[in-house]
Amino acid sequence: MVFPHRHLLGIKELSEPDILHLLDRADAAVQISRREDKKTATLRGRTQINLFFESSTRTQASFELAGKRLGADVMNMAVANSSVKKGETLIDTAMTLNAMRPDILIVRHGSAGAVALLAQKVECAVVNAGDGAHEHPTQALLDALTIRRNKGRLGRLIVAICGDVLHSRVARSNIILLNAMGARVRVVAPSTLLPAGIAQMGVEVFHRMEDGLRDADVVMMLRLQRERMEGAFVPSVREYFRHYGLDAAKLALARPDALVMHPGPMNRGVEIASDIADGPQSVIESQVEMGVAVRMAVMETLMAARDTDPVAEGTS
Amino acid sequence: MVFPHRHLLGIKELSEPDILHLLDRADAAVQISRREDKKTATLRGRTQINLFFESSTRTQASFELAGKRLGADVMNMAVANSSVKKGETLIDTAMTLNAMRPDILIVRHGSAGAVALLAQKVECAVVNAGDGAHEHPTQALLDALTIRRNKGRLGRLIVAICGDVLHSRVARSNIILLNAMGARVRVVAPSTLLPAGIAQMGVEVFHRMEDGLRDADVVMMLRLQRERMEGAFVPSVREYFRHYGLDAAKLALARPDALVMHPGPMNRGVEIASDIADGPQSVIESQVEMGVAVRMAVMETLMAARDTDPVAEGTS
Amino acid sequence: MVFPHRHLLGIKELSEPDILHLLDRADAAVQISRREDKKTATLRGRTQINLFFESSTRTQASFELAGKRLGADVMNMAVANSSVKKGETLIDTAMTLNAMRPDILIVRHGSAGAVALLAQKVECAVVNAGDGAHEHPTQALLDALTIRRNKGRLGRLIVAICGDVLHSRVARSNIILLNAMGARVRVVAPSTLLPAGIAQMGVEVFHRMEDGLRDADVVMMLRLQRERMEGAFVPSVREYFRHYGLDAAKLALARPDALVMHPGPMNRGVEIASDIADGPQSVIESQVEMGVAVRMAVMETLMAARDTDPVAEGTS
Repeated sequence: MVFPHRHLLGIKELSEPDILHLLDRADAAVQISRREDKKTATLRGRTQINLFFESSTRTQASFELAGKRLGADVMNMAVANSSVKKGETLIDTAMTLNAMRPDILIVRHGSAGAVALLAQKVECAVVNAGDGAHEHPTQALLDALTIRRNKGRLGRLIVAICGDVLHSRVARSNIILLNAMGARVRVVAPSTLLPAGIAQMGVEVFHRMEDGLRDADVVMMLRLQRERMEGAFVPSVREYFRHYGLDAAKLALARPDALVMHPGPMNRGVEIASDIADGPQSVIESQVEMGVAVRMAVMETLMAARDTDPVAEGTS
Repeated sequence: MVFPHRHLLGIKELSEPDILHLLDRADAAVQISRREDKKTATLRGRTQINLFFESSTRTQASFELAGKRLGADVMNMAVANSSVKKGETLIDTAMTLNAMRPDILIVRHGSAGAVALLAQKVECAVVNAGDGAHEHPTQALLDALTIRRNKGRLGRLIVAICGDVLHSRVARSNIILLNAMGARVRVVAPSTLLPAGIAQMGVEVFHRMEDGLRDADVVMMLRLQRERMEGAFVPSVREYFRHYGLDAAKLALARPDALVMHPGPMNRGVEIASDIADGPQSVIESQVEMGVAVRMAVMETLMAARDTDPVAEGTS
Repeated sequence: MVFPHRHLLGIKELSEPDILHLLDRADAAVQISRREDKKTATLRGRTQINLFFESSTRTQASFELAGKRLGADVMNMAVANSSVKKGETLIDTAMTLNAMRPDILIVRHGSAGAVALLAQKVECAVVNAGDGAHEHPTQALLDALTIRRNKGRLGRLIVAICGDVLHSRVARSNIILLNAMGARVRVVAPSTLLPAGIAQMGVEVFHRMEDGLRDADVVMMLRLQRERMEGAFVPSVREYFRHYGLDAAKLALARPDALVMHPGPMNRGVEIASDIADGPQSVIESQVEMGVAVRMAVMETLMAARDTDPVAEGTS
């Protein structure tokens, strides 16, 4: 199969076969990081640039290790300290980087759509590492990989996504992917943390954990951003934890073999109790491991697609 | 030809054959970055340290990619966060790095002469990546390469360097290089942005763009630093753009095939109009691409010179 | 010999044969950095992560170069800009990194014991790059290597460690190592800069340089942290230098071939006079060079130990 996309901008653009292709390659990539010699020659001689307009140590680290293990030369651009401060536009930054002839650009940006805009201006492959509240496709893929490896499938599973859905690109990408793969998706949150029109995304909406977690196969907790812990969204951290924090009592309503997931970094005692985060149902560490594998699969796939695409070759 | 310099501290020290040698090697290096496999073994096993006392994302990125594509191990030193803060002197920093046995040190520093001083204290090759208002030799070389590839030559071309010449090491290095190569150099700026004694540098001085751009083959715009946009140097950004910003009307005075250049990052609407920056005469993106090639050529040349220099070998 | 440790957390845990083994391997590693081709394949395919909760440009650079010269993929984590700010705990950071499957983790942290705690949570080898006022084992090893290469031995040498012993993990690790190797250790400091119970560490205590330096084979100066230059610890920088700064007069009391050492970065004119720092007895630059070699030896040794340890293999 030839992957029919030049970039990975969102889950929205992927078909079910696209997603399966990436998950299958990621499954194979898991083994590479478990070996003593983790270095392959797949992307040898290729240049990967990590361009993070928002800082994110863990996501950037995951992409950096993925690229290095594929043999690419990886360069981090700390854009917070860069030309952006000097008033350079996003497009000028993109064009400057493009002229340095990277093969793949990993971009995180605070605004929805910024990564897609940038992708139009460059010849290399672009991977969206999070754009505003829009999409975070590699997170959804790593979550799907984690679920599939534990449950053997995605279809027909009941997945409850709980917490700050409103501001979460993780939630958005996951909802799209899980729907595409035939899972049954629920969102569980107070109405202040749900976007308008959420029901149109093909999810069941719950306002109480006690209802939303019932019989769930997967409980996916979302991070509550610090800046939203006080004020309009949430009465108090203590109240939030009492109603929406995942503890043993609430988890007991899900299926006994339900997986507990969290994209990290966790606020222990806010959206999740410590004993649950470290408990036997938690696959939170596994998610991080799958993250490296998924990113290897995505970069490898995009590069392979370009090598076989005469149009892409012609323009690069 | 054996390159007769241990360091690249400024264009001032280079002869015409030195410059031609670097431009020829850079021409060859351009192809490497356009290949799928951009990695060579030229500097395999060598250590390159980027030591930036002033932050500059794009110049540092250019040197980093150049080194990695030559196969060197590249290490960035963010000196802003470093021992300098703890009161360590420039010389101690130099001697510490020297003891770690790098092969090549890329240095940017806010003070003119600091890089040359540092070069006296270390055994490895040193490349000046910009020292105060003194020199920025790789910028002048990449500008020359861009011009030569578009015009076929440097000699007898009319090059108008416009804007804040006073504070610009880019202007200084370009003036020296272009004079050495037989171009006719003009500077165009208000008298507040020209250094005393500029005429002694072998340039024609103009105060009006309408005069200085007439029949120019190359229009090289300089960045107006943000901190100089108000106050003693410039009445206002709007006034500055009206008199010294490159727009279609002013560019029409130059030759119809005149090249438009800018070292970046650009202030659109300050020293250059957006439509000109993106227009058909602009070679601004090409300058960035040539930057990587020039830096590859410089590092490769300095390393080759050391390998054949018994004195250099003896001391390193 | 199989090295019997999974981590290097402190000198305290090392036996005399352990120390000799590391020094011997470091002696061999010195040559690698002096070659033109400094790259080996010893750790090819391994992942090294530098996790610095306190910033330290020179120590991090030394570990980075050591890893790259051994052929490892090295990733720096700037934790100051990271998830720690988002409220993530040390343990969660450790577990996240562990899930990315590094082979070796280099950790600096502001709290004594934090590195050992972290080591319990990960499967990879951990090297303590400084934890609070507790230990800095690679510094003690590089100091020992420098002394042994200059004096031919460590046993029976008189080593005077001078200055802020109270806050110094460098002093602590050196005292333990030098005692283990049979040197005679003195500490020389005002009582405000000595920890309670220092005499129980097996050192002779002196309060005057004039007494403590007499007949010393090695004079090891400690850095006076800027924040301690005023107030409770020291009357004034000028007074401190007069009484405890190493100058020619004080050094004359030591043996004529005494080595002058400093872990860097130096405060010239505070704990050491400039002419002494740059004088013929100074081995301060050599210490930096030995630092890279020691770190190569430590990482190589820990990796080799794991390869031959069936238990370690089983758990990683």
